[in-house]
This record gives sequence, C-alpha cells and structure tokens, in this order.
Amino acid sequence: MSSYFAEIPPVRFEGPESKNPLAFRWYDKDRVVLGRRMEDHLRFAVCYWHNFVWPGNDPFGGATFERPWFQGGDPLAMAKHKAREAFDFFSRLGVPYYCFHDRDVAPEGATPRESLALFQAMTDELAAQQARTGVKLLWGTANLFSHRRFMSGAASNPDPEIFAMAATQVKAAMDATLALGGENYVLWGGREGYETLLNTDVGREMDQLGRFLNMVVDYKHRIGFKGTILIEPKPREPSRHQYDFDVATVYGFLMRYGLESEVKVNIEANHATLSGHSFEHEIAMAQALGIFGSIDMNRGDPLLGWDTDQFPNNIADTAIAMYHILQGGGFTTGGLNFDAKVRRQSIDAADLFHAHIGGMDVSARALLIAERMIQDGAMKAELDTRYAGWGSELGMGILGGTLKLEDLSARVLTQNRDVAPVSGRQEFLENLANRYC
Amino acid sequence: MSSYFAEIPPVRFEGPESKNPLAFRWYDKDRVVLGRRMEDHLRFAVCYWHNFVWPGNDPFGGATFERPWFQGGDPLAMAKHKAREAFDFFSRLGVPYYCFHDRDVAPEGATPRESLALFQAMTDELAAQQARTGVKLLWGTANLFSHRRFMSGAASNPDPEIFAMAATQVKAAMDATLALGGENYVLWGGREGYETLLNTDVGREMDQLGRFLNMVVDYKHRIGFKGTILIEPKPREPSRHQYDFDVATVYGFLMRYGLESEVKVNIEANHATLSGHSFEHEIAMAQALGIFGSIDMNRGDPLLGWDTDQFPNNIADTAIAMYHILQGGGFTTGGLNFDAKVRRQSIDAADLFHAHIGGMDVSARALLIAERMIQDGAMKAELDTRYAGWGSELGMGILGGTLKLEDLSARVLTQNRDVAPVSGRQEFLENLANRYC
Amino acid sequence: MSSYFAEIPPVRFEGPESKNPLAFRWYDKDRVVLGRRMEDHLRFAVCYWHNFVWPGNDPFGGATFERPWFQGGDPLAMAKHKAREAFDFFSRLGVPYYCFHDRDVAPEGATPRESLALFQAMTDELAAQQARTGVKLLWGTANLFSHRRFMSGAASNPDPEIFAMAATQVKAAMDATLALGGENYVLWGGREGYETLLNTDVGREMDQLGRFLNMVVDYKHRIGFKGTILIEPKPREPSRHQYDFDVATVYGFLMRYGLESEVKVNIEANHATLSGHSFEHEIAMAQALGIFGSIDMNRGDPLLGWDTDQFPNNIADTAIAMYHILQGGGFTTGGLNFDAKVRRQSIDAADLFHAHIGGMDVSARALLIAERMIQDGAMKAELDTRYAGWGSELGMGILGGTLKLEDLSARVLTQNRDVAPVSGRQEFLENLANRYC
Amino acid sequence: MSSYFAEIPPVRFEGPESKNPLAFRWYDKDRVVLGRRMEDHLRFAVCYWHNFVWPGNDPFGGATFERPWFQGGDPLAMAKHKAREAFDFFSRLGVPYYCFHDRDVAPEGATPRESLALFQAMTDELAAQQARTGVKLLWGTANLFSHRRFMSGAASNPDPEIFAMAATQVKAAMDATLALGGENYVLWGGREGYETLLNTDVGREMDQLGRFLNMVVDYKHRIGFKGTILIEPKPREPSRHQYDFDVATVYGFLMRYGLESEVKVNIEANHATLSGHSFEHEIAMAQALGIFGSIDMNRGDPLLGWDTDQFPNNIADTAIAMYHILQGGGFTTGGLNFDAKVRRQSIDAADLFHAHIGGMDVSARALLIAERMIQDGAMKAELDTRYAGWGSELGMGILGGTLKLEDLSARVLTQNRDVAPVSGRQEFLENLANRYC
Ligand SMILES: [Co+2]
Ligand SMILES: [Co+2]
Ligand SMILES: [Co+2]
Ligand SMILES: [Co+2]
Ligand SMILES: [Co+2]
Ligand SMILES: [Co+2]
Ligand SMILES: [Co+2]
Ligand SMILES: [Co+2]
Repeated sequence: MSSYFAEIPPVRFEGPESKNPLAFRWYDKDRVVLGRRMEDHLRFAVCYWHNFVWPGNDPFGGATFERPWFQGGDPLAMAKHKAREAFDFFSRLGVPYYCFHDRDVAPEGATPRESLALFQAMTDELAAQQARTGVKLLWGTANLFSHRRFMSGAASNPDPEIFAMAATQVKAAMDATLALGGENYVLWGGREGYETLLNTDVGREMDQLGRFLNMVVDYKHRIGFKGTILIEPKPREPSRHQYDFDVATVYGFLMRYGLESEVKVNIEANHATLSGHSFEHEIAMAQALGIFGSIDMNRGDPLLGWDTDQFPNNIADTAIAMYHILQGGGFTTGGLNFDAKVRRQSIDAADLFHAHIGGMDVSARALLIAERMIQDGAMKAELDTRYAGWGSELGMGILGGTLKLEDLSARVLTQNRDVAPVSGRQEFLENLANRYC
Repeated sequence: MSSYFAEIPPVRFEGPESKNPLAFRWYDKDRVVLGRRMEDHLRFAVCYWHNFVWPGNDPFGGATFERPWFQGGDPLAMAKHKAREAFDFFSRLGVPYYCFHDRDVAPEGATPRESLALFQAMTDELAAQQARTGVKLLWGTANLFSHRRFMSGAASNPDPEIFAMAATQVKAAMDATLALGGENYVLWGGREGYETLLNTDVGREMDQLGRFLNMVVDYKHRIGFKGTILIEPKPREPSRHQYDFDVATVYGFLMRYGLESEVKVNIEANHATLSGHSFEHEIAMAQALGIFGSIDMNRGDPLLGWDTDQFPNNIADTAIAMYHILQGGGFTTGGLNFDAKVRRQSIDAADLFHAHIGGMDVSARALLIAERMIQDGAMKAELDTRYAGWGSELGMGILGGTLKLEDLSARVLTQNRDVAPVSGRQEFLENLANRYC
Repeated sequence: MSSYFAEIPPVRFEGPESKNPLAFRWYDKDRVVLGRRMEDHLRFAVCYWHNFVWPGNDPFGGATFERPWFQGGDPLAMAKHKAREAFDFFSRLGVPYYCFHDRDVAPEGATPRESLALFQAMTDELAAQQARTGVKLLWGTANLFSHRRFMSGAASNPDPEIFAMAATQVKAAMDATLALGGENYVLWGGREGYETLLNTDVGREMDQLGRFLNMVVDYKHRIGFKGTILIEPKPREPSRHQYDFDVATVYGFLMRYGLESEVKVNIEANHATLSGHSFEHEIAMAQALGIFGSIDMNRGDPLLGWDTDQFPNNIADTAIAMYHILQGGGFTTGGLNFDAKVRRQSIDAADLFHAHIGGMDVSARALLIAERMIQDGAMKAELDTRYAGWGSELGMGILGGTLKLEDLSARVLTQNRDVAPVSGRQEFLENLANRYC
Repeated sequence: MSSYFAEIPPVRFEGPESKNPLAFRWYDKDRVVLGRRMEDHLRFAVCYWHNFVWPGNDPFGGATFERPWFQGGDPLAMAKHKAREAFDFFSRLGVPYYCFHDRDVAPEGATPRESLALFQAMTDELAAQQARTGVKLLWGTANLFSHRRFMSGAASNPDPEIFAMAATQVKAAMDATLALGGENYVLWGGREGYETLLNTDVGREMDQLGRFLNMVVDYKHRIGFKGTILIEPKPREPSRHQYDFDVATVYGFLMRYGLESEVKVNIEANHATLSGHSFEHEIAMAQALGIFGSIDMNRGDPLLGWDTDQFPNNIADTAIAMYHILQGGGFTTGGLNFDAKVRRQSIDAADLFHAHIGGMDVSARALLIAERMIQDGAMKAELDTRYAGWGSELGMGILGGTLKLEDLSARVLTQNRDVAPVSGRQEFLENLANRYC
C-alpha cells in the first residue's frame, strides 16, 4: 500500500554523537525534563498542508514536488492515498500530533452539500488512520482563504452570503475536530483584512469578525467541545493588513467583543517577526495578557518580507523562546506545531524527514537548555532583583491605588533629590544566557 | 528684542499662482470648507522641540544650527529668549497653536524643586507670550525620555522612585497645560518599552503603566481639566519595543485598564508607517474604535527604519488622510501638529518658514481635495454599495445575533449553491480618488 | 471572434474634466511635449504575463479570474485565442507596444523540440496580430524561472545541462524578438540567486552568469539584432538573494565581465523600493553610470515586503521619476512598460482597462508636470548653483588630477580657517517641486 | 593614575565550566586552531569611539555614562586621561589591537593648524601607550561625518573647499596610522550620500569620491604605507543613501575608478543586515570579488531599522560567518574589530568588560565550531558534489568560451529530453551545520 516513504526507517533517538542524518540526536521522548516527559512537554505536531498538499509552487514558479498523490485521478481516492501516506510519515517520524485544514484532507465538491459529504468521508478516514497509528489531532481548522469566493474576506466579506459560506465550513470543521478528539480549534484569517481602504470599512468588518467569533464560541459550548479556540495572529500577507495583526491587537479585539476569557492565541514565530516583534515577545505578551495557547514553531527570515515558514534551526533563539514558554507554565491544550515547509528545491521524500528531524532536535535541545536556565535560576534571580523596589511600601502604594499623582509629587519635592539609574546589565545577561547553550 | 526672524515678513495667502516662496499658495485661513473656516478645520500647531530645542545633531554628528538662543549664558534667560523667538515665529507664520514638553521650555534644575520653579517661571512667560500674540496651546506634555534617570523607563521603570519622579513632572505639566488653556494633554512613552526581554517583565511593566495612566485621568478630573488625554503610539525607537506600539495596541491597553472612554490617541504619520501601517489606516482604526483624538502630520520615509519626522509634501497621500479625518467628523479638541523638523542641513532661519509653509499648504490643498471627494460623494457611494448586502434580512440576522452558526450552515446547505465574488474595483477607485487631486 | 472585451469601446482622450472612467483624461498621444509627441515620449507597453497569463492566484489562494482562454482545451488553440484577445485589448486601449516571455505566448511542449515548435508557431501568430493591429514589440524575454528544472537557477544552476536548456530558450526568444521587430531584449533572473549559502558558491555562479550574458551579447551581434540587451535588477523574491540586486550591483557585474558598454538596465519601480532605493534613485544611478535603458513603471507598497506590481497612481512620485528620465534624455530604444497586475479581486474585464487607463493617465500627467519643471528651469538652476564651486580653479584642479592629497592639506593649513556649510534647502526644494504638480 | 577600571582584574581564560563572569570561557589565545594561535586567527580589536567617546546619548536622550574623562577641563588633558584609561582597558581585557578616528583621540581645535597640532600631540601619546602596553593599531581612520562642515558630505560635498578640509584630515590620519604601525587604513563615508535627490547630482558626487580615493591610494604609495586601504560599506544612516551601500556596490565603484586591486572592504555585520544581506553573504561576496579585507563583528537587530552596533551573541550565526572567513583563507592585514557599543543602560565600568568578554568568547567558540566544520569536511564535500557537473566537458566548454549560444541550443534539441532537477538539500545542510555547534 503506502510506499512513498518506504525507504525511510522509523526515526530513533541515537544521541548527540550519532552521525545518522535520519536519527534524532536530541529528541529523546521519554527523557524527563523538569518532571515531565519530553514528548509531553513539546507536544509536537506535523502540519498536513505544507507537507502533503503544497506542490512546491511559489509566486514565480510551478510545482516542484512529484508526490504520488498529486498524480491525478478520482479526487476522493487521491485524498485517501494522501491520508495514508501522511499517517505513514507521522508514524515513521514518531510525532504524537498532526493539524489540518478541512480542504487539506478533502477536496472541494461541486456544491456545498458535496463538499460536506467529501469532508465527512475523509473525517472517517482520518479517524481510521488515527486509530491505526495512535497519532492524535492537535487542532483542526477551516481554509477560508484559498477559494476565490473568499477573495474579499470570509467573515469580513462585504457579502453576508459569503459569511454564511464561511460559517458552514467552520461548523463542519469544528464537528470534525470534536469527532477526531482534537484538542484545539484554530482560526487564521488570511483574507480577514484588506488590500485598500478605498473599498473597505474597517469598523464594520471588525464587527462582522467579532460576531463570527462569538458564534464559534457559542457553538463550541453547545456541542461540548472542551478544547481551546485559538486565533493565529499575522500582520499581513496575503492581504495588505489583517485584523489579527499581532498578539496585542488580538487581545484588544477579544476585549472589544467580550471574548478575552474564551479565546487564546496560536503564536507563529514567522508571523511574530513579520509584525516587527521577536517570537519571545509575542509569547511573553500573550502570557502577560492571559491568552497564551499554542505555537507554530516555524521561523522566517528577518531579511525577507514574506512568510517563509522555515523549520527552526537556531539553537539559541529557540532556547529563549522555550524558556519563556516554560516560565509561563508550558502548554496545556496547546502544542508545538511545525507550520513549516521544506524549501521548494528540497524535492526528495527524505527532505521531509530531514526538515522535521532538524526542527524536533533543535526544539528538544532548546528544551534542555531552558531546563538548565530554570534549574540554575540565575536569570530569574536577576529579574527579581531588578524589580525588587516594587515590593516596597512606595511600590505597593502605587500599584495598590492608595497613592495619587499629587502624593507622589509631594514626596519627590519633599525628598528633593534625584534618583540614580541602575545598569540594565544587558551584555552580562546575554553572556549568562549563552552559558546554558 | 526678538530678531532672529526679523527679515521674514508675516506670511500671507497669495494664491496658487504666487511664486513667492514665503507666501501661502493654498492655506487661506478664512476660506470656508464644508461649512467651517480652514483655520478651524486644520487647527495647525507648531512644535517647540524640533524647531527651538533641537540643535541639528543626529546619531553621527553634532549641532548644525547656530540659533542665538543656543549661545549659552543663564539658562532661564536663554529659555526666555527662546520663548520670545518661538512666539515671534508662530506669529509671523500665522499659526493658531503650539505644543511643548516641559523640558523644551524650561531648563532642568539641580533639584526637583528647582526644576519645578524654573518650569513655573517659564509657564508665566508662555502665558505672557500667548497673551501678546494670541497663539494658543494645542497640547502640553512632559519629557520623560531624555534624562538619564528615565533610561530604563518612566512609569514602567523597575524602580518606583523613578515612577514618582515621572509623576511629579506630569503633575506639573498638567497644571501648566490647564493654566495655559491647553486643549489636550499628551503622553508619549519613548522609554516605556524595553531593549531586551532578558531584563524585562512586560506584564509587570504594563500594569505600572496602566496604573500611571489611571492616576493621570483621575488627576485630570480632580483639577477640572476639560481637555482630552491623548496617547501617541509609536512602535519602537528609542527602545526596541514600546508598549504604545500602534492604535490597536493602545486600544487593548486602554480596555485592559478601564480607560477606553477616557483616553484617545494622537496619531503620527511617521509612527504609523514605522509600525507597518499607513497613516490613514491608523486614523480609520482609531475612528472605528472610538479613540481618534489628534494628529502629528509628519511623514517618515518608508525606506528608512527610523523616525525622520519630515513635513508632509505628498499631496495625494495627505489628501486621503484628510478625507478620513473629515469622514470621521474632523477634530474636536484635537488638531494638526507638525512634530516635524527641518533637515539638519537646512540651517537658515528661512528654512523653518519654508518647511512650515510647505506643510501647511500641502495640508490645505489636501483639505480642498477632501472637500471635493465628500461633495461629489462617489467614493462613499461605492463603499455603501459594496456593503449593501449587510442591510438584508440575512445581514441583520447575523449582526443582530439571532442567527447561530448552525442556522447559517443549514441555510447554505439548503440553498446548495456557491456565491459568486464581486470585483473589488481597486484600480477604478484609485483612479476615482486621483480625479479629485 | 474575439469577444471578451467587446463591451469596452476604444479608449479616447476626453480631457481632465471627463467623468468617463473608460476615457483618458491626460494621455493625449499627439500632444507635443518638449518637442516630441506624448506617445513617442512615453512609449507605453502592456505586459502579456500579468494580464493574459496570471490567473489571479497568490501564495494563499487559487485563481480568481475566469478568462475564456483559461477554459482548457488544446493548448495551442488556447494560446491563439489568448493572443487574439490580448491584441484586441492592446488595440482598444490604444497602446503602441507590448512585451512577452516565451512561455506567456506559447505552451511548453513535451520535449525541447516540441516547445520550440509551439513557440515558433506562436511567433507567427504574434507577427500576424502585430500586422493586423499595428501594435509593436517593445521587448521579448525568456521565462527561466517558472519551470521546476530552473528551481536552482538557469545560467547559475549547479548543472551545466540546465544552463544549456536556458541557452536554448534564450536563443529562441532572441530569434523571435528579432523576427517580430522587438526593440530590446530583457533578462530577468528570478532564480539566478540562492536560498542558502550552505549549498551555494556565489563566485562560481556569478562566473556562470557572466559567461551566459557574454554568449547572449555575442549572439545578438552575430544575428544582427540592433536592439538593446537589458538586465532587470531585483534584490530578492523568489530567491533569498538575486545576483542582479540593484542598478549599482548590475553595474559592477557588467564591469567584471566586460559588458558595461553592451548591456543596460530595465528599472522597475517596485524592484527599486524592494532593494531599499527610490525609483528615481535607480534611474539617476543608471544615468550616472551610463546604463539607463528602459523602465517597468509599476510601484510596490513600501510597507509590504514583496513585489505587488501595482499600477502607478501617485502623481507627485511619478512626476519626479519622469523628470529624471527626461533630464537624462528620455528613452531611446527603451519604453515605459507596465509590469503591473490588477489586484486579484479586480476580476472584471473592465478592471484591466481601469488599471491601464489609470497608469497611463498618471504617467501622462507626470510628463506634463516634468515638462513644467524643465521649462521653468528653477529646479536645475538650484542644483547648478549648489555645485558651482566645482567650476573654480580648486574644483578643476581636484577633479583634473593636478592636485594631490598633500597639496590640499597644505592649502588648508595655509588658509587656516574653517569653511562654513551652506543650507541644503531641502524643504524649499520640496515646495518648489510641488509647485509644478 | 589610571583608576576607572581598577577593580577589574586582568581577564583570564578559565574554560567553559567557569562561572566567573569576568573570565573567558572560550577565548584561549594560545590554543592552536588549524595550525594558528587563536589570537593570530581572530586578531581582535577594540574600538575607541563607542567605548571611550560616546556618552550614552541617543536620538531621544542625553548622556548616561559618567566616565571620569567626560568631566570637563582642558581638552588635551582630558584626551590624555581618556587614552590612559583606554589602554588600561585594552590591557586588562587582553586584546591585541585597537582602532580609532582622529577626532576620537584628539579634540578639534579652533583652526586647522590647531586641530593638526592637537592630533599630532595625541599621536605621540598613543605611541607611548602602545609602547607601554604592547597593544597595536589595527586601523586608523578620519571622522568626516560629525562636524557640521561635513553635513553635506566630505569628498562628495558640493563645495570643493570642504573636500580639501577632508583631504587634510585624511592625510594627517594616514600619517598617524603609518607612524603608529597601523596595519590598515579605513574610510567610512557616513555623509558621502544624500538626503534628497532634489539637491544632489549623484554622478558628480561619485566622481568626486572616486577622485578622493585615488588621491588616498596615491598618497599611501608615496609615503610607503604597506597596510591595506579599506572601505566600510553601509547602505544608509545617517544619510538616506550612502555611495558605499554594500560590498557589490563598492566593487562596482572600485572598478569604475580603477581601484579594484588597491582597495578592499571592511565588512560590518550590522551594515550587512541593514543593506538586506546576511553577514556571511557580504563576506562570501567580497571573497568572490577579491576584495575581502577586515570585519566589524557587531550585529544589529534585524527587526530594527538602524545601526544598533551590538556585540555578537548568537553562536550559530557567528560560527557560519567564521566558517566563511576561514574558507576564504582568514585574515591577512585585517582583523576582527568590535565596532560595538554597550547599551546606554549598561552604565557600569564592568559592563564594558562583560560586553567584550561575551563578544570575544562567542567569536572564539565560533572559531572552534568552524574548525570542526573544516576538519570534518562534509559541508564542503556537499558543495563540491553539487557543482561537480561543471568539471565535465560541457561545463568546461561553456566556461572556457568554446561553446556558443547556438551550440548549446543544438545540443539540447539533439538530445531532445528534459533535465531533471536535483534536491537542494537545504534542511539536511542546516542540520549538518548544527551538528558542529
Ligand atoms: Co506562516
Ligand atoms: Co502558522
Ligand atoms: Co516621530
Ligand atoms: Co509625534
Ligand atoms: Co516586480
Ligand atoms: Co518588471
Ligand atoms: Co554600524
Ligand atoms: Co563599523
């Protein structure tokens, strides 16, 4: 049956000294890190779309990948072929989770009913594959950006009939996610934005989006879905501006529509840098605002202005992100998805393995570095010392609200002396962080 | 007495055909536009800092400007000299408003009390100059970013004693703004951000900022200040990240700290582009969120990664911003400040006039273009047509909350047909907008 | 026969007051500007690829355009259908030139010989269409970036067999360009770059490219092609780095391979801004270096990091570019191509007209503004004054090479006084430039 | 005497396990790496300007550093105080080289002669300090960007008298560099660019610069300076555009003015990323073009649009740069300068040590990683394999010039088959590179 990956043996942990490029050097799933198995910390997921749907095209060129399931024929049969190969890949790689869009796994039909039927058939197939392999669903989502009907938005479309089309897909995708035991449901709005303000009313469109998201949350509760609803921020691309620009923007949006305790964020490293932030900034901001959910651990190239969705490969950068995740308590329903694609020149079956092995090993190595940072405690101690003054009577009085502006002014004028600044010690701290790498 | 600008005659309106570089070609303050005098629409303000304080230095070079009030001597005497020249400039230019930071107008003293006394002395001087010239105060603000004590933040400082120092300055600046009849009070937090997360706790610092802003609002009400409290968003520079990143971020911040009905935004064109948005985006977003207040009409260079604070000179870009301002109802307490500086090579007294005349003329010409856009109505009509479907039963049912996700799904599956997209007509609309230029 | 554009009447000049969106308001082809007809100045060309080949897809979505020639069927028949529609469009628009890639006009065959035969058949068809309509070929080019065989480069490929494939296409495209009376031949190297230095030897690849370009120039002379060979610089996208990064980089490349008097540049506005330069910078730089050839007058969005290829719509920006073109002597064999595409939401046939009419009108209006700038002469006079000192004995001695470093030092130490700087008058000049708009 | 750093003991190598923040963990100067002592490989230099001249100001704030040599008093006495402290720092750190601008080490005088005398006095002082400590001069340079006379350029100034002023400074700085045994002389042109094309003639200014550089080279030979003349590319900042934009631009410039065998480049990591390139790209490009000279090993922040001049701290990024340097043969006269500054919040004397220790340790660790990459040879072997086809008869025929365009076409049409692409294996190679980290 499934044969595309037949030549790749299951990937095993062989330790840092291994020279086998198809083995893990760092990801040792049963190794206990800070009291939890590596696998349970990292909760790795492989994405369906980049690995099994994307043909290797880019804005200037066509397909480069010649996968057997792209050869044409009956769409449903091809979808099943693809699903078998996908789960074969997940199994050989040894990853516990996957993620998908509705249109990744099932073809669009000629009518809404046909599309639904095809998707439901494939949901059954996915259930069977999950049962066969033990691979689980981290999150499901609906593709509301590829079809031309969504070219001007899905929930933010000027036409409410298209809003309804989007609602139809999301309902089905939520039903499937529930049926498949998915642990989260994600919304990403690649078309929920605009190309020009000349044809766009942003206030109206945000209200549409707010209404849509409320419908989703309402439906979640009524069907008894216990997972987390997640929004994945991205500033732009494909549109000129997207309403889920970054974590802080999503937070304001959730507050505006009364959803801040219902919805969290799925933060992608590449989207973070495209919005002018570091990945760890977006993680720290989401934790501070109480909306941290899950991550897409795929980097971009800060010198490029689009989403390259590359596998993580920088050890120190990944370690600092992992440190922030752990400091905030780690994942609950969330996990570490690779919304990453091999380069379009990486056309071999083995390249899919190299990419994921590299990403998983860098993440595992980052986890071990973060463990050392936490166990040593020096980084946190430096931070605590720096803010220690806020535990004083003055600090508590300010934050507690007992002191007014004029009270502080009176105090300063009474003391009548300047306050000396203290070194921020950035270089010392950078050296300290490198010590754990 | 005041002589630096003595050779520049008062600037008059001479009409588009004038070749006099020291005359207005478009700014005709008494011309009525959409029922309001140009002067009352535009509410122009000149900033004190770039024009009278900045010596022309940049990160790679020292002062280039040789103003008489930089010559040294008794600081208070020099501050008074500077104030006289500034008001002479405002008068000759014929601008109704100015804006200042506390430290622009008065020198820092050796102690907090001395600083306060110097500032109060200069407040009296400004009052006298206002009375002499009729020039009014659009807004006051406190400089919480230049002194080394604020190097790690003012309200967001790790040391609450520095928070208190900042509070002292803000109280005094609010008092002065009230005394001088200022119509708004602005906060810009150039140091309210971070250089590295290694020494920063963003959640804690945002709470400090939220508390500070609540103190300011509380004080405003208690002293009976009727103007608007404004935050000026800027994504970064001088810091790596500032908490008032953009309009959407500020909105979320205000919601978090219960201030969304108390505080509005002062939007700067240059800060908009530095945050990855167009100026009109930030205006439209603030209007949609109900927090539009005032603007700093100074552009950046989108190819440069720092704040160049240049005078507006692109007619079409300025017109579209003005159109959005007018569509949202125009200014109330806000106005149009030029937080702009002449290039450091523009060392002559006349250059300050050329710069402001150009900025005012471009803004006035933009106002006239926006008037034509509004009177013609075609741009708005296109937008209304595009969203017309939301007035249908379906649209109202969605937005009104009577329809659930599954109701929409049922409807789509019953209709069982696709919905055709409609052209976004962007190029048609761009041509239409150019028609008014 | 050809019917897609049947409802659009030929586009006529109706003057600035016209409200007909399908008329020119500024492009009056026979109007004489600085002694030359507008049509002869502007030498407008429409590109084949964006208008007739691109289906409206983007990295996140599929086709949005439903053109009749995309309906499927015999590829050669569809190519002929497309060609008829394209020339019908050119005629109705009233544009004198078009541009194409080999693969735009003819399908790829199953073998190199079949591809060549298809291309030659379509060359005949294009010749017939040119004869029928009077539309001429501004430039031809070969698509060496879309097919998967070129995924790692064409001339810069690690495999010389692919270099040979590229040479085969370029030879055929040059032959066709000659046969069709094309006035230039363009090379753009979307894959002549790299994704990672880990698999790339840049020195070796530049030598390959240098050799390829020398072959092209050699072939040009031997076949008697009298047009200009042009390179179109672009910094990146689709690759991470392209060897034709910008005008200055191309100049160094031409010098290195002895081609600086044989090859010129086709400058695209969007590629200019992606490389961190303004469009007028790239024009001025090419003129200064003696390699200015032709332009692609399509802008990008400076806030976006990819090639949006939008029609020009900013009057002032276009005017300053046109001013530089005219100051440098205008076009010889080059012209003004729109390598521009309608937005993928602009799905109607009429949108193709709106886009080009807007682009042509803005360019024509820019030409009229540039005419005023030149006739008035004040801008040039300011520049001449600024550099007047270089006509002095000192200036001539420096540039003429008679003065040595120590001569200048001796002179300065003898004079023993500082030299005062002079205002750069940037704001005055910006106001002056706006005066002609 | 010298006491600012008195509390910091000389920095020693203590090995990776050391927890002493004032010890080296990786920089073991006598350790032999690929046949050369670490110290001789790395040729570290400390810069005078950021460490001993910059007071900690930024565009929004004043001085934060309170160094004893900033306290005021006789300028020459302060300059000598500063020099003693600087050499004390170099000695305690154990760095073999330093770099300076003329105006870093000596104050500007009231007249050219006075400035020269002050500089000559300080040259003697530096000579004495070099003799005392054994610290050597990697390169000297002249500051032609800070003084207001250079606001519109030095060699590219519209006024030839200012060109002469610049020549005077450069002659003196070259004389001093020769006298002090400097191994290179650097030119960086922060004002050799423009703010607006409205007042700039780029062709004329490049000719002025070309002439200036020829004078410098001519003078170098006549005085018998055996070091290398270096240009340091930077795309912009302080100006909008600088003529030494990047390595490729400098190469074209050198070719244009006949200097490609006389002048090399000093590549700064931060300037590389500001120009849209990676550091290793600029190194590889300079090596390919034969103009690699020296490096400034200070990184920027790719999310910020200005020159942050930070110490390197990313191990993997630094390792790949070091690998390219070693693959190209390492340094000859060049070295590894830290044109880096501590953050302005890092106000303690110890912070200067932490910063340099971190930078030196990261560089040393990178050198050891690069050693492993080279000794293992797998990275190079992959590259050789990828281009192996160019050693074939076809490849040699193409590069050797015996094959013409039509020969290749004939070959392809005869073979009449497609050529299959080969995987670029980027992810495999990224994993491989990480293996050495
Ligand atoms: Co992404
Ligand atoms: Co993602
Ligand atoms: Co600004
Ligand atoms: Co501002
Ligand atoms: Co383009
Ligand atoms: Co182009
Ligand atoms: Co730098
Ligand atoms: Co440098």
